[in-house]
Amino acid sequence: MKSKGERFERELVHMLWSKGFAAVRTPASGSISYPVPDIIAGNGRRYLAMEVKMRSSLPIYIPKKDVEDLIKFSKRFGAEPYIAVKVKGEGWRFLSVDRLIKTNRGFKIDETNFYSASDFDELVGLKQLKLFN
Amino acid sequence: MKSKGERFERELVHMLWSKGFAAVRTPASGSISYPVPDIIAGNGRRYLAMEVKMRSSLPIYIPKKDVEDLIKFSKRFGAEPYIAVKVKGEGWRFLSVDRLIKTNRGFKIDETNFYSASDFDELVGLKQLKLFN
Repeated sequence: MKSKGERFERELVHMLWSKGFAAVRTPASGSISYPVPDIIAGNGRRYLAMEVKMRSSLPIYIPKKDVEDLIKFSKRFGAEPYIAVKVKGEGWRFLSVDRLIKTNRGFKIDETNFYSASDFDELVGLKQLKLFN
Repeated sequence: MKSKGERFERELVHMLWSKGFAAVRTPASGSISYPVPDIIAGNGRRYLAMEVKMRSSLPIYIPKKDVEDLIKFSKRFGAEPYIAVKVKGEGWRFLSVDRLIKTNRGFKIDETNFYSASDFDELVGLKQLKLFN
């Protein structure tokens, strides 16, 4: 399970390099207690922080803390926060955090926000979103 | 040796968080073949890419490829490239790559450029250096 997740994260890192970004996977949190996303990327104009979620099917539930940590890191670093989603049989989709659906205990991605989310080409073609200033 | 280097990298990551940056250590290169620095940090205005060198004494010789990779990553990502140096008994020093001394096979840090390099407070107090545009 873990290694499958890693394989998809590596795939995404490769895709980002192929489109002019420099991208890194961050190490599994381990001893470090800071809110660090799974992938950080930049291309000199845009900086992306991504939490990667890989699931066999929709809906996907995301703990509140994951989203809060992603926002916290992104504000401080200076990056656009995205949830990068790989659902079995579907291409990558990228949801900015304001596209997530609120639930009692966190956030949700289902058919209503998954299919309208950016695909990879849209993500790398986007202009810089100034969510936090 | 490795774990001692890691301890110093962690210390530097902590120092950066304490000064308003978000910072991450990148994973030991391993399977990924991209030129990735040891530490990436940002604070919304400045982005830093650092190659960390820990030695017991001066001079420090740095292979040409390490410096080229640091520059390559930094240009693509959009970061200021630094060599972060921890010499036993001395505080951290940060050399921008243009401060390195050229040798036949790479670069050198000795008394002449080490002591004039930025210390940590100077590093985090610096304005953005636009080395690459």
